[in-house]
Amino acid sequence: MSTSLQLRSLVKSSGQLELSLVEVPIPEPGADEVLVEMQAAPINPSDLGLLIGPADVARASVVGAGATAVVTLPIAEPAMRALAARADASMPVGNEGAGKVVAAGTSPEAQALLGKLVALNGGATYAQHRIAKAADVMPLPEGASAVDGASCFVNPLTALGMIESMRREGHTALVHTAAASNLGQMLVKLCIADGVGLVNVVRNAEQAKMLKDIGARYVVDSTSPAFVDELTNAIAETGATIAFDAVGGGRLASQILWSMEAALNRKATAYSRYGSSVHKQVYIYGGLDTRPTELAHSFGLAWGINGWLLPLFLAKVGPETADRLRARVAAELKTTFASHYTAQISLAEALEPQVIAAYHRRATGEKYVIVPTKTA
Amino acid sequence: MSTSLQLRSLVKSSGQLELSLVEVPIPEPGADEVLVEMQAAPINPSDLGLLIGPADVARASVVGAGATAVVTLPIAEPAMRALAARADASMPVGNEGAGKVVAAGTSPEAQALLGKLVALNGGATYAQHRIAKAADVMPLPEGASAVDGASCFVNPLTALGMIESMRREGHTALVHTAAASNLGQMLVKLCIADGVGLVNVVRNAEQAKMLKDIGARYVVDSTSPAFVDELTNAIAETGATIAFDAVGGGRLASQILWSMEAALNRKATAYSRYGSSVHKQVYIYGGLDTRPTELAHSFGLAWGINGWLLPLFLAKVGPETADRLRARVAAELKTTFASHYTAQISLAEALEPQVIAAYHRRATGEKYVIVPTKTA
Repeated sequence: MSTSLQLRSLVKSSGQLELSLVEVPIPEPGADEVLVEMQAAPINPSDLGLLIGPADVARASVVGAGATAVVTLPIAEPAMRALAARADASMPVGNEGAGKVVAAGTSPEAQALLGKLVALNGGATYAQHRIAKAADVMPLPEGASAVDGASCFVNPLTALGMIESMRREGHTALVHTAAASNLGQMLVKLCIADGVGLVNVVRNAEQAKMLKDIGARYVVDSTSPAFVDELTNAIAETGATIAFDAVGGGRLASQILWSMEAALNRKATAYSRYGSSVHKQVYIYGGLDTRPTELAHSFGLAWGINGWLLPLFLAKVGPETADRLRARVAAELKTTFASHYTAQISLAEALEPQVIAAYHRRATGEKYVIVPTKTA
Repeated sequence: MSTSLQLRSLVKSSGQLELSLVEVPIPEPGADEVLVEMQAAPINPSDLGLLIGPADVARASVVGAGATAVVTLPIAEPAMRALAARADASMPVGNEGAGKVVAAGTSPEAQALLGKLVALNGGATYAQHRIAKAADVMPLPEGASAVDGASCFVNPLTALGMIESMRREGHTALVHTAAASNLGQMLVKLCIADGVGLVNVVRNAEQAKMLKDIGARYVVDSTSPAFVDELTNAIAETGATIAFDAVGGGRLASQILWSMEAALNRKATAYSRYGSSVHKQVYIYGGLDTRPTELAHSFGLAWGINGWLLPLFLAKVGPETADRLRARVAAELKTTFASHYTAQISLAEALEPQVIAAYHRRATGEKYVIVPTKTA
């Protein structure tokens, strides 16, 4: 049986994270399965938890080179306690990606995909090959490359999921933080297309300009001295009562709830000691700021803060809604949902300390894609 | 037209809170209304926000005496900003109470209540008289005094609302903090009667003993050195995935979510980097700790923290459920829902600085009831 390279992340109970490429057998697809030669898999913020976790990227050391390199990064003792459940288990990485179907099972559905480019998700995409159920892959539209289709799932479905959550819960406009991200740019385009009010919160003037250039109407810079007033004004104008927050830590979520409450109270006709009865919601879907979230409770009693995770959202809304959202992604893959990559890197390059430092920085607008077919 | 005394709380834009009794006309009841001579109205923690707010009770000064006393308490400048909406508006106070129907409108429903003892809620109960819709009052059961029925609404419906929320949202057991309160004792009795698992979090050994004495099975003392382990064990044994928290500030809500996640992970068979997919919920319904809430995000992504307020809950579940809960309160008024009062005070006594200091302390197990018919 021939073998193929797969990137692995291993937390050792001795307190190190080890990244390496391992040779794994290339499996035969079952009747309803396909074998995909992976050609592109993005490094999303949501991949970094499993790939790097709390390990110290500044102190990486390497033994070997190229495909046989083994990178070791230290993990501080307190962080190790949270990782007990994965200690000493070598884990494949990569939430999503795209590639070519090079073998297929006997079922007509699987056979129909032979030779086609498909996108897939569900883990282990940082590899040269991956098995998938024929029903779980998404054939790419005509003219789309594997790199075009590599980020079909996480960002596009998250952006669509935000609007879907907003509508299901009875809100009519939303706030988005870290809004200059790839995901944030998709959301700007979607909200323009769908006529949904969107308040974009960014962290500098350059990001604000970039979003304005692609048509964003409300952009608020959190480093502005008048940030809270500007946020409250934008929320009052759009009527936003739900927010999706990638920052997580610190006081931003609390500030957003405060601004929503202040915007609602501008319209209030009588004093209520419990504050507005309109429900104000923040979903935290990322943790760019790893400090604790601080809630100041100055926003009445009709509020909620929840974690938000794409797989849980898709399970909640059910397959019919999920299929509808996926169909929109396929239809708008090269327009609304186009991703832009800073660099295409090989599996071996993904283990080089300076490359790790670059993709681990999560700089807004920077995004790396692993191209397992690349050899260099 | 004759007049009657009503307690008022007035925030002056000059930075003082003024408490006084004012003479107000006794209104004629409309066709579907009754006039209630108020005989008992409790001072709940939820009343103190409107009554005292952030004013400094240690620096109260009094002019006049008895029914004509005017008490002035200073309010610090930062706190004044949050009170702008009620500045210079004299506000009646008191969420609930009970008394005797001394006049009734022409409708048969109103006439049927004449001479009866009834409980009511909705504000302005710290007064000698109050008008209410006949449909909104609850006749007290045979043998119950006005003092027995004074706390029919806030605590009993909150305790029942917690269990109702738990069931509606698919949980099977719950955690309650500040569990030695009047409300907490009702919840212990209810959970025993209904066979619902309950984890009681208290703040000292005396409170723990008191709850054990009335039959509580799981009582955890937050000052115990092994608090987190004991909480996690109790949560694991009951399967609690929802909590009602009266503390609000600090790290308690975060610790509860952490313990729920840890309890769920004890049963997990495989590592998930996103944590358990079981939703963990904390409802904050009080603010005994006025510091910000700190969330450490060490409990996966399937979690929510929400404000919880009785009127919003009742509006959400609708009149049928609200009526079912109210009927249970009436049936168990002298057993499950019996309240115990530290002291019965007159309207005039409620303005005395040392009495204000006593009811403002919100000591667990201490509760004051205003008896407007009391003259002394």
